[in-house]
Amino acid sequence: MTRPLLNALAGGLALALATAAQAADDPLPSWNDGDTKSAIIAFVESVTTDGSANYIEEDARIATFDNDGTLWVEQPMYTQLAFAFDRVKEMAAEHPEWKTTQPFQAVLEGDHKALAAAGQKGLLEIVAATHSGMSTEEFEKITSDWLATAKHPRFDKPYTQLVYQPMLELIDYLQDEDFKTFIVSGGGIEFMRPWTEEVYDIPPEQVVGSSIATEFKMVDGKPVLMRTDKIDFIDDKTGKPVGINSHIGRRPIMAFGNSDGDYEMLQYTTIGADGLRFGAFVHHTDGEREYAYDRDASFGKLDKGLDAAAQNGWVLIDMKNDWKTIFPD
Amino acid sequence: MTRPLLNALAGGLALALATAAQAADDPLPSWNDGDTKSAIIAFVESVTTDGSANYIEEDARIATFDNDGTLWVEQPMYTQLAFAFDRVKEMAAEHPEWKTTQPFQAVLEGDHKALAAAGQKGLLEIVAATHSGMSTEEFEKITSDWLATAKHPRFDKPYTQLVYQPMLELIDYLQDEDFKTFIVSGGGIEFMRPWTEEVYDIPPEQVVGSSIATEFKMVDGKPVLMRTDKIDFIDDKTGKPVGINSHIGRRPIMAFGNSDGDYEMLQYTTIGADGLRFGAFVHHTDGEREYAYDRDASFGKLDKGLDAAAQNGWVLIDMKNDWKTIFPD
Repeated sequence: MTRPLLNALAGGLALALATAAQAADDPLPSWNDGDTKSAIIAFVESVTTDGSANYIEEDARIATFDNDGTLWVEQPMYTQLAFAFDRVKEMAAEHPEWKTTQPFQAVLEGDHKALAAAGQKGLLEIVAATHSGMSTEEFEKITSDWLATAKHPRFDKPYTQLVYQPMLELIDYLQDEDFKTFIVSGGGIEFMRPWTEEVYDIPPEQVVGSSIATEFKMVDGKPVLMRTDKIDFIDDKTGKPVGINSHIGRRPIMAFGNSDGDYEMLQYTTIGADGLRFGAFVHHTDGEREYAYDRDASFGKLDKGLDAAAQNGWVLIDMKNDWKTIFPD
Repeated sequence: MTRPLLNALAGGLALALATAAQAADDPLPSWNDGDTKSAIIAFVESVTTDGSANYIEEDARIATFDNDGTLWVEQPMYTQLAFAFDRVKEMAAEHPEWKTTQPFQAVLEGDHKALAAAGQKGLLEIVAATHSGMSTEEFEKITSDWLATAKHPRFDKPYTQLVYQPMLELIDYLQDEDFKTFIVSGGGIEFMRPWTEEVYDIPPEQVVGSSIATEFKMVDGKPVLMRTDKIDFIDDKTGKPVGINSHIGRRPIMAFGNSDGDYEMLQYTTIGADGLRFGAFVHHTDGEREYAYDRDASFGKLDKGLDAAAQNGWVLIDMKNDWKTIFPD
C-alpha cells in the first residue's frame, strides 16, 4: 500500500468516525441542521449549563406541548372527533331517535354540510352524548379498544403511529436534560391519558386537557367515577394558561403549539418572564408528507399566531424544511 | 487491661455499632415500634420488592396525603382560615361596610358566636372576599408574606414548622422507594403551593386542592391570571376522588387522611382494587403534645371514618402512642 493511499484511508476513517460520533451526539437526528434546530439546542444548552447566565434549576424546567397538530396528526379532523363519530355509529342502535335528530343524523348519513351547519355546539353535543354515562375506567377501555383498531383514512395506520418523530426526539431530549414535559391539549384529558405514557413517555399526571365533570359513587360496593354529560373545562385558548396553573402551578419555560388555540399558552410562557423563554409553533407546510394548512384551516387554524410569531420571538417550525422525517418508521 | 474487661468493652462496642446501624436503617425513626409502623413498612416492602407477589411498578406507586390535620396542625382552626381572618382585618380599611356586615363584622369583633352562626356559607364568603381580585402571583406573595410572620396561637411558632415530623419521614421514605407523593387537600391549592416544596419536598404540580376560578388577561402587555371570586372546585369528601382523577389520572395505592373529608379518598384508593392497597387516618389522640379530637370536632371531624376503619382494613395512626415526637426540632 502506498503511503498517500494509506493517508487517504486513515483520513477517511477519521472522518467517518467523527461523523458517527456527531450523529450519536445529535439529540435531534430527524431535524435538518438549520436555524430552528440550532435555536432549540442553543436554548436548552443555555438554560441547563451550570454557570450559564441563563441557567434554570431543574425543578423549574417545565415544557408544555399541545397535542393535536403539534405531536400527532389532526387532519382531516381531530382524532377524537373520528372517535366520537364512530361511537355515534356504534351507539345508534340504542338511539333510534338519532336517525332523525341533528347533529347525529348528519354523522350517520355522512352529511358534512349538515355537520358543518351544526357548528361547535353540535360537536359538543356529539362529544357529550358519546363520552358520558360510563365510569372513567369503562371509558378508558372504550378509548383503548378504539385506538387499537381504528386507522387514519389517508395513511391507513393506527393514529398512535401518526405522531411526529422529530417531536418524540425533542421530548426525549428535554427529558434527558431534566425537563418535566407536559401535554396541554384542547383534547379530552381522558382520551389522551390511556396512551401518552407508552407513546410519548408522558405519564397521566402530566397530561392536561379538556374534561367533562365526573361524579364519585359507590356502585355494587365499589368506588367509581361516573362521567356526566356536563362540560367541566375547555383547555383551549385562554383556557390553556388556566389549565397550566391548575395542574402545574408554575409557568413553563418552553411551550410548543401549532394553532391559535395555543396563542395564550405561548404568551403566558414567554412574555414578561425574568429569564430566557422559548415558544414555538409547528407550521404545517408539508402537503406531500403530511398536510399544508394555516390561516384557513377548519382544524388547527394558525392565523393570529402566525402574525405574532416574529414580534414575540416565537420560532416557526417549518415542517417541510426542518424535518427529515415526519413519522416514526 | 484484663481480658474480661476487654471482652466486655468489645461486646459493648459491637452492640453500640449494631444499634447505630439499625437506627440508620430505620426509615421512620420518629415512629414507635409497634403495629402501625410495622404495617406501613410491611406494605412498602411488599409492593417494592422485585419478585414479590404484590409488586407494583414504580410508575403506579402513587401516594396521596391530606394536608390539614394529616401533615400539619388544623386546630384551633384551619391555618387558611386564620389567614383569611387576618386578611379581613388588613383589608377592613378599604371596606368600611364590613363593620356592620356579617360575617365580616364577626371577624373584626372576634365574635365567635356570630361566626359560628354564619356557617360554611359565611366562611366561603370570607374566603371569596379575601382570596380574590388579585393575580395568582400577587396572591402567592401575600400568602408567603403572611406565612413568614404569622404564628400559631398556642405553639407560638410559624405554621410551616407545625408539620408532623413522623409524616415528613413517611413522605421521605416513600419518595426513596420511588413513590410519587401528592397532597390532596380541602385547602386552597394556591395557598399550599408556595411552600409545599420546601416543607414537604412536594412540588406544585403534585398539589391538589380546592380552587377559585382564574381568568387569563393581558395587563400592561403582560400575561396574568386574575383570581375571581367564583369557587371553581371543592376538593373535599366526594371531591377528593374527582380531584385525584383530574390531576393524577390514576388511583393511588396509598392514601393518608385524618377526617371524614378523606373518607371517599380512602374508599377510592383501597376498595375493589386488584392489588394490595393501604389507607390510614391520623387519629388525634394527644391533647398534651398536640390536640385530642375526633367525632365532635368543628375542624377535622372523624366520625364515619372511625367506624369504617376496621371494616375496610384502614390503619388508625394513634398520635399519642405511635409517634415519638410530633414536630421537627
